[in-house]
Amino acid sequence: MNRLHNGDFLLTWEHDDATVRAVLDTAAALEELARGGVSCKVFETGLGVSIFRDNSTRTRYAFRSGCNLLGLMTEELDESSSQIAHGETVRETAAMLGFLTEVVGIRDDMFLGEGDKYQREVAAALDESHKEGVLMQRPAVINLQSDLDHPTQSMADLAHLVEVFGGIENLKGKKLAMSWAHSPSYGKPLSVPQGVITLMTRFGMDVVLAYPPGYDLVGDTLETASRFAKASGGSFAVTDSMAAAFENADVVYPKSWAPAAVMRERTRILHSGEKDKLKELEREALASNARHTDWECTEAMMRGTKGGAARYMHCLPADVTDVSCAAGEVSKAVFEKARVDTYREAGHKPFIVAALILLTRFADPTEVVRRLAKDAKPRRAG
Amino acid sequence: MNRLHNGDFLLTWEHDDATVRAVLDTAAALEELARGGVSCKVFETGLGVSIFRDNSTRTRYAFRSGCNLLGLMTEELDESSSQIAHGETVRETAAMLGFLTEVVGIRDDMFLGEGDKYQREVAAALDESHKEGVLMQRPAVINLQSDLDHPTQSMADLAHLVEVFGGIENLKGKKLAMSWAHSPSYGKPLSVPQGVITLMTRFGMDVVLAYPPGYDLVGDTLETASRFAKASGGSFAVTDSMAAAFENADVVYPKSWAPAAVMRERTRILHSGEKDKLKELEREALASNARHTDWECTEAMMRGTKGGAARYMHCLPADVTDVSCAAGEVSKAVFEKARVDTYREAGHKPFIVAALILLTRFADPTEVVRRLAKDAKPRRAG
Amino acid sequence: MNRLHNGDFLLTWEHDDATVRAVLDTAAALEELARGGVSCKVFETGLGVSIFRDNSTRTRYAFRSGCNLLGLMTEELDESSSQIAHGETVRETAAMLGFLTEVVGIRDDMFLGEGDKYQREVAAALDESHKEGVLMQRPAVINLQSDLDHPTQSMADLAHLVEVFGGIENLKGKKLAMSWAHSPSYGKPLSVPQGVITLMTRFGMDVVLAYPPGYDLVGDTLETASRFAKASGGSFAVTDSMAAAFENADVVYPKSWAPAAVMRERTRILHSGEKDKLKELEREALASNARHTDWECTEAMMRGTKGGAARYMHCLPADVTDVSCAAGEVSKAVFEKARVDTYREAGHKPFIVAALILLTRFADPTEVVRRLAKDAKPRRAG
Repeated sequence: MNRLHNGDFLLTWEHDDATVRAVLDTAAALEELARGGVSCKVFETGLGVSIFRDNSTRTRYAFRSGCNLLGLMTEELDESSSQIAHGETVRETAAMLGFLTEVVGIRDDMFLGEGDKYQREVAAALDESHKEGVLMQRPAVINLQSDLDHPTQSMADLAHLVEVFGGIENLKGKKLAMSWAHSPSYGKPLSVPQGVITLMTRFGMDVVLAYPPGYDLVGDTLETASRFAKASGGSFAVTDSMAAAFENADVVYPKSWAPAAVMRERTRILHSGEKDKLKELEREALASNARHTDWECTEAMMRGTKGGAARYMHCLPADVTDVSCAAGEVSKAVFEKARVDTYREAGHKPFIVAALILLTRFADPTEVVRRLAKDAKPRRAG
Repeated sequence: MNRLHNGDFLLTWEHDDATVRAVLDTAAALEELARGGVSCKVFETGLGVSIFRDNSTRTRYAFRSGCNLLGLMTEELDESSSQIAHGETVRETAAMLGFLTEVVGIRDDMFLGEGDKYQREVAAALDESHKEGVLMQRPAVINLQSDLDHPTQSMADLAHLVEVFGGIENLKGKKLAMSWAHSPSYGKPLSVPQGVITLMTRFGMDVVLAYPPGYDLVGDTLETASRFAKASGGSFAVTDSMAAAFENADVVYPKSWAPAAVMRERTRILHSGEKDKLKELEREALASNARHTDWECTEAMMRGTKGGAARYMHCLPADVTDVSCAAGEVSKAVFEKARVDTYREAGHKPFIVAALILLTRFADPTEVVRRLAKDAKPRRAG
Repeated sequence: MNRLHNGDFLLTWEHDDATVRAVLDTAAALEELARGGVSCKVFETGLGVSIFRDNSTRTRYAFRSGCNLLGLMTEELDESSSQIAHGETVRETAAMLGFLTEVVGIRDDMFLGEGDKYQREVAAALDESHKEGVLMQRPAVINLQSDLDHPTQSMADLAHLVEVFGGIENLKGKKLAMSWAHSPSYGKPLSVPQGVITLMTRFGMDVVLAYPPGYDLVGDTLETASRFAKASGGSFAVTDSMAAAFENADVVYPKSWAPAAVMRERTRILHSGEKDKLKELEREALASNARHTDWECTEAMMRGTKGGAARYMHCLPADVTDVSCAAGEVSKAVFEKARVDTYREAGHKPFIVAALILLTRFADPTEVVRRLAKDAKPRRAG
């Protein structure tokens, strides 16, 4: 049974293991078809609409590629040139965007306490308009990064791990270090670490979350990670030492984020419009970061991992010391060795997006994929 | 006979009743097919180009959705990033955009005396390039709102009325109040009220136009409305009282607009570049609006309508008192009751756009629709 | 044999004559099919990505139209709203954009010494990601204007000449004057004159390049033009007199550009961020231009050409005296007579783009075109 049919995908932890596995399996099947030159077009016409309330390259193109793979034309809602600037409500916008739309992808990750809420408001508005017969179908809402989770990223990460270790069952007992890392910028969202600890704990991994005192994530996600670890036979621990987290790790994911408290204060200030306070907050946050330049994924740090050869992961772009900044999340040497592998990691995202569309839009996506494979229609002439 | 074939659609009053009915019938047929999951793709490839010289959400997405429904890829001409900024002429731009384009949709509604003129310049330029063999086909120009008319809106409104009253013949004798309403912003285009009074008078409705002294529309449109009312057996009257217009009305359409004289002066100032004068004009216009806050569609006002239960219409977004502003066009209570219905009203627009494309691009659109229905190709797999 | 298969197209002079002829033949075949209403869709799904680092109307739409003609959905990388602003490297961006992409079109023409280099960096990055298995296919890179060449323009120009003179063999012995012309703006790229002199010399034309002292092009391109002229039995000469160049010319191409030295200095200043120096450079460059207002393609100047009736060419937009400026490249009378013909010239560009895509993406494009013609699937219903 496909539990995602006619549903949304906002947080991985709202969906059972079977659903997450179905996403991975469908993505893998689509990737195999695509690599074999087989057309995966399942829509003659139809729209995928994206709303980006923060910058994006990878996820934007993953969304567009995933839509295109299935035959959907993409549109991006540009809030600046739309009448949304004129005081339109979410309900109204959702109805207008939804008329012939299959999927609405939303990134809203900069305001802690608001991004996920906004995505649910859009979903509720689409529900209403569909129930009232305004919309002929209820488009799926897919989270392209909120304040809480970044599911297309974390599931692409999971797909990468499955590939690396040769099967999801092989993740059992592998140690993953999700670690804060130093960055010369502040205000990075929390959704990636939150997404990683809540997802990887579900498949028996030993997940360690490391961060300097004060760099807390949203509390619920730690509880969720603990609960999942318990159920899966894995473990979840928190430490304030990058080195401790890296010790004997099979996989390391060193990535900067802003403390939840800073993100909450930032949201408050942005609403109140106190410009001076924003500058002050930034100054303080950067000063705080600067006290932790030793949280860098260096070759020395990597030597503590299993066989000194842990898999390095990153959602990109990484702050690479001596490449994109003077002192960042990762040393040039470590990053350069893993660079192409991080592209491979990212390469799963378009197929995760496509899988989410298939699963939310079709009652029997397995049958849809089977038929695509059977028909084996070439994606291009010649 | 399809009189729109190879033509444009700029003003409803340039087209005979049979043509308007054909637009409505085609839109309804396409909507029925789409709701039934039948593919309406009639183009293998081809472009729909839009030029938005003012903000837009609803109409932009209606255009894109309508194009996508038929198989056209959409492109939006962004005048800021194009070389139009380098002094390109309309003729040149039209030729360049037209190469493989089926339809050009244009919004140009902010400059009274210019929007419609610009659309005709584009049309003439396309004519020239086609006649000279530069363009392999002559794209249709569709008005997505000009200074004079907003035909995709008014025809969506008409389609809504036809649905509400169960047939176009049932509009005869129904009273519609097109009324100015208070807004805390100024500079709203005239095309909606002008479009409504000139279209609804053609089908036997009793149309009353209400506005405070000074808030005149472009004169010709009132004459056109009178002429149509006479021919259709309906009526057209003008009053300076919202209450009088609402009395016993079946339908009310309370919507703000700027006086034609203000819009003309605004156009003049924008050309001359006198920034101070623009501020002054805005101040005066807002002060003038503020003298008419009683032009609000309240529950009390609605009690005067037929059975106290007139249908409320709006092109959206509405200025809703206590929702999007302190004192607007409509009270929260009235709007909330009608809200979903205004979405339904808007929901006809993508199909009106698609119908206009079918009618302008195909000699026998009825046959095209018949074949789509007969083939009944599903829009999506599975 | 198709030497472009799995390759890029950055500079015409990197490709042999047979390849250039194949581009022209394929473009002509596609145009004939399109004008006959035959679908040229060869991709079921797939993306064409464009990166415009300078304004564009014509080339942007040519790229989009060419992609659409073949069935590709287009995406434009907007560097301002992407995380490229966050310090992303070219290699990373290329990998992310490349996942399901067939072609990447790039305009980067404002920085002398950098545009071509950037295109090669993107190409190298795509190579790496493809070789490593990250990308399932290696997208072609197509130059949509660099600091060195503007091949879709020059080949559209060539296609136009072939049409005008009734065959590529008829270009032999025809005289073409590629002349600098006065403009009231500065900083125009060099790629058009460089592209024209290096391409037209390959087919036996007598090409004369004319410019006032100091307005040099990048030196290598003159050597390339000389070499090609020698090989093709044509000629290549340089003069500092527009009148001399026009004498007895069959074709004139009067077009402004900035001196290579100015463009180099401009690039240096833009990197160093010396705003005052940029103003000073602009002032000097405009003063220099102003000393050459006599370099205008007037009716008097045209009288010196063959029979007083040389073919006027321009890549558009032209600076037309008394139309788009007070003193420009061409007089109103000369331009108006040739205007529609310049649209025709531009009209080849979408098909050149489509031909480049076919040739880079298919091993046997001739067979692909033959099959399209044989199937003769209509591009639209009815």
